[in-house]
Amino acid sequence: MSAIAAITRLLISCADRPGIVAAVSRFLHEAGANIVSSDQHTTDPEGGSFFMRMEFTLPMDRAEHAEFERRFATAVAEPFAMHWQMWQVSTPKRIAVMVSRYDHCLLDILWRHRRGELEGDIGLVVSNHPDLRADVEAFGIPFEHVPVEKGRKAEAEQRQLALLAGYDLVILARYMQILSAEFLEQLAVPVINIHHSFLPAFAGAGPYQRAREKGVKLVGATAHYVTPELDAGPIIEQDVIRVTHRGDAATLERLGSDIERTVFARAVKWHCEDRVLLHENTTIVF
Amino acid sequence: MSAIAAITRLLISCADRPGIVAAVSRFLHEAGANIVSSDQHTTDPEGGSFFMRMEFTLPMDRAEHAEFERRFATAVAEPFAMHWQMWQVSTPKRIAVMVSRYDHCLLDILWRHRRGELEGDIGLVVSNHPDLRADVEAFGIPFEHVPVEKGRKAEAEQRQLALLAGYDLVILARYMQILSAEFLEQLAVPVINIHHSFLPAFAGAGPYQRAREKGVKLVGATAHYVTPELDAGPIIEQDVIRVTHRGDAATLERLGSDIERTVFARAVKWHCEDRVLLHENTTIVF
Amino acid sequence: MSAIAAITRLLISCADRPGIVAAVSRFLHEAGANIVSSDQHTTDPEGGSFFMRMEFTLPMDRAEHAEFERRFATAVAEPFAMHWQMWQVSTPKRIAVMVSRYDHCLLDILWRHRRGELEGDIGLVVSNHPDLRADVEAFGIPFEHVPVEKGRKAEAEQRQLALLAGYDLVILARYMQILSAEFLEQLAVPVINIHHSFLPAFAGAGPYQRAREKGVKLVGATAHYVTPELDAGPIIEQDVIRVTHRGDAATLERLGSDIERTVFARAVKWHCEDRVLLHENTTIVF
Amino acid sequence: MSAIAAITRLLISCADRPGIVAAVSRFLHEAGANIVSSDQHTTDPEGGSFFMRMEFTLPMDRAEHAEFERRFATAVAEPFAMHWQMWQVSTPKRIAVMVSRYDHCLLDILWRHRRGELEGDIGLVVSNHPDLRADVEAFGIPFEHVPVEKGRKAEAEQRQLALLAGYDLVILARYMQILSAEFLEQLAVPVINIHHSFLPAFAGAGPYQRAREKGVKLVGATAHYVTPELDAGPIIEQDVIRVTHRGDAATLERLGSDIERTVFARAVKWHCEDRVLLHENTTIVF
Repeated sequence: MSAIAAITRLLISCADRPGIVAAVSRFLHEAGANIVSSDQHTTDPEGGSFFMRMEFTLPMDRAEHAEFERRFATAVAEPFAMHWQMWQVSTPKRIAVMVSRYDHCLLDILWRHRRGELEGDIGLVVSNHPDLRADVEAFGIPFEHVPVEKGRKAEAEQRQLALLAGYDLVILARYMQILSAEFLEQLAVPVINIHHSFLPAFAGAGPYQRAREKGVKLVGATAHYVTPELDAGPIIEQDVIRVTHRGDAATLERLGSDIERTVFARAVKWHCEDRVLLHENTTIVF
Repeated sequence: MSAIAAITRLLISCADRPGIVAAVSRFLHEAGANIVSSDQHTTDPEGGSFFMRMEFTLPMDRAEHAEFERRFATAVAEPFAMHWQMWQVSTPKRIAVMVSRYDHCLLDILWRHRRGELEGDIGLVVSNHPDLRADVEAFGIPFEHVPVEKGRKAEAEQRQLALLAGYDLVILARYMQILSAEFLEQLAVPVINIHHSFLPAFAGAGPYQRAREKGVKLVGATAHYVTPELDAGPIIEQDVIRVTHRGDAATLERLGSDIERTVFARAVKWHCEDRVLLHENTTIVF
Repeated sequence: MSAIAAITRLLISCADRPGIVAAVSRFLHEAGANIVSSDQHTTDPEGGSFFMRMEFTLPMDRAEHAEFERRFATAVAEPFAMHWQMWQVSTPKRIAVMVSRYDHCLLDILWRHRRGELEGDIGLVVSNHPDLRADVEAFGIPFEHVPVEKGRKAEAEQRQLALLAGYDLVILARYMQILSAEFLEQLAVPVINIHHSFLPAFAGAGPYQRAREKGVKLVGATAHYVTPELDAGPIIEQDVIRVTHRGDAATLERLGSDIERTVFARAVKWHCEDRVLLHENTTIVF
Repeated sequence: MSAIAAITRLLISCADRPGIVAAVSRFLHEAGANIVSSDQHTTDPEGGSFFMRMEFTLPMDRAEHAEFERRFATAVAEPFAMHWQMWQVSTPKRIAVMVSRYDHCLLDILWRHRRGELEGDIGLVVSNHPDLRADVEAFGIPFEHVPVEKGRKAEAEQRQLALLAGYDLVILARYMQILSAEFLEQLAVPVINIHHSFLPAFAGAGPYQRAREKGVKLVGATAHYVTPELDAGPIIEQDVIRVTHRGDAATLERLGSDIERTVFARAVKWHCEDRVLLHENTTIVF
């Protein structure tokens, strides 16, 4: 068993009350686990919500681990009515990318993937345009062209859904089509989008042009989980870059694209490392 | 005549066409001026607007300078249909402050004023609350309390206008009342406001609370010229600071207040140095 | 007992090994404590060091709390050979400031103190110059002028030590004298300094001038604990600001002073909240 | 003649004295030029140096342009003893890259090149290792492997010089060999290096490890012109990114590499656009 295979990750969210940490850490200690890292957050010590992310090593085979999880459910999770997930880091997330014509977010994430920066395996790129095929295939990753024709979007979404089946995460590296609520519901895995503005400012189309007209002094990018409401899902990460009166909309787009790919990559990396927990329509990022 | 007295500042805006810089610089050179700094901007070389800010030394007495300005008008400004202003830097801008109860932007700007950071003289602080009197008077600056009572705002604005007469610039250091269009029209000098969000996000009241609910990862501040439309005037400067899930609305407010005072001070300083030119609803900051 | 009085803070550092978190959290839970926040860090899961900062509420009177601490020592701290500290947050740190002539870091920290941003009570300002007396006394804080004359530094340090006796923290808000190793040893409490460069670049005197000559594109500030070696103690916080070829050394100093006061204030605030733990010559900031 | 072909760029540096701008702009205006952008900087109005960068359109054929430059030399440049350069932007700079094994700066600049972000043509990549051949050739750019063996460096430098002949700019995208003074002298074109620290801190080898040991809270990158003195040439651009106690040296390297490629790309882009002028051992960046 390799070093990385030995690490187990545990995510917990529940109503806060005394004894949670004691119960979790005692259970892990008695099972022989060694805690490698631990983060917790309480929205309010009185009546708030409790969130925890823990990594520990635990030398067990697969069967023992399954039994360990069952005992955790009974002895710890149920008494505290926890939402929880536990799994071994040795299984990286399977990731599919959706993209249109812009290459910057796509190439950056493919490069980070090749470099081993992500705890995830990018297994497929789906695009509504054929333009980026050669770039994707140069990384040894399959590329599927699914055109989205006017009036035939539902059909395209069915093809996309068939291709995306079995993936744990879908990431939109500047995919310029709106995903329908039905699509999201059938997909049933998290979808991360990169929006080219500092949300909630300039939601929707053409944010750089609108930023230019408004005369803002910083342009930004926002990575968020996709929900049926456009550009309104929980924000994972944001950043900005300074612009001046010298920059026309094309300059803003060029400067912004550097921020887009950085913000997108951070969000995908953090999601793959299970650092992002949901709380209402916001995120906790450990 | 002191070194600083010798500096003249020239601002120009006009339709761009060939020969502007040649005409201006030739006129200045023949008059014996020595250019100390010069910035220019063209929105578009074909059919765009031209903006220029120039500083030069010109050893003249007051009468000669008046004659010099007349000749500039005839020989240079009129042929190019320029909007222009020229004056000696030795006359600092007279500034009045309006404030409510928050002290951070006020104290910061008073301290910078005392330190000599601003090319301006703060001569008065007007507040709708009496709370900050001692702080202001400790800086040797008069403090006037003008309560704004419900239903009697117009009356209060008349008192304010009487107090503000003769000032070149009014700055709102977190003044929590909306200024009426009539007030702005009668005041007839620039008004700079600091808004505690990264506009256009979270215009209006309660931006930190709304930022918290939206789950943004950065909070910001925006300094802008005041126009009758709330929080929509030309933006002079903006900045942001990173926040996390750990920060409640009070934390966002504390972190944000550091950004507010910095952004506010930069905008006031730049305005006093005549670095901010208007172009439609945006600014050019040299 | 007020809400804030009920919070107890616990800091731990020790060699990492399995069971630490379980032992601590079980002990706290059985004593009736409710954990409000908890941060931990392991430098290396195998043979590394373990650091923890915990805040919990524990409804006890003073005598019960003393007994609680004794039991913690025996039952938890000794078996793991912990370095540890535990105390109630209701007792703020007593802080003394040393300063020379620059006012920016001093006024900023006095203002934050007045605003209630610090968990500490500033009780005294000691200066080798009389200049800032009025500013300090306006905040209702005693000011002591202790001149440091050439050849009589040891004498001045003895006077300073007498004044500083009983304080938990000494902060140097741009104090332009080097503190001797003997002074530091006799003082025997932490000393935080703000250095006006991005250390280790430009340690020693005149950093802005040297930054200007070197042509750096960012200037910075560093808050660190003072050790006998000049400008080489553990770094608590750093930040930078962008400068251009337009800025002479005076401009760099002006821009830098904004960063100095921000970095200084953060470091003092974090120290007062016991967020800063030492590890070799570096810090862990929770 | 295409739109971009019509732009001429003029760089000037000379001792500052009255009349420079007037002479230049009058000459250009009389020749029929239309100034598109203009930046100037005076280190000191009295006895300082003057720097200018100007872009203008001038509809001339090649022969007329040569005559125009001759007249500029006689009528303007000589009277003011200017160092000056003038050329048409239609001729992009020919760029060669030197690299070792790290791919991040290389791939980023090749991607920006393909995207049309640089005013330059990357024509060759030379490496002392064969590793990156496929990546480079995928961009359609020749790759030359020139091993640098111990004791045979001079020989390798001769091969490199032969390959680099005819290029206007050499950029070191993490090239891990020191270039000899003889090499630089024979090369006789500017060389831009990216150093993985915030110079002057951590010059030389292993900066991330040393940054980690020092406990700095920000790591940086510096792009500079190469001079015979290691890591001490004029700085073009710098930036930093925040790190915490959680980050080991590998994390610092990962985070830093994002800053390296950004800073490197900005420096190369600005150099290609002739925005970087030298003043003693520093740069003016217009």
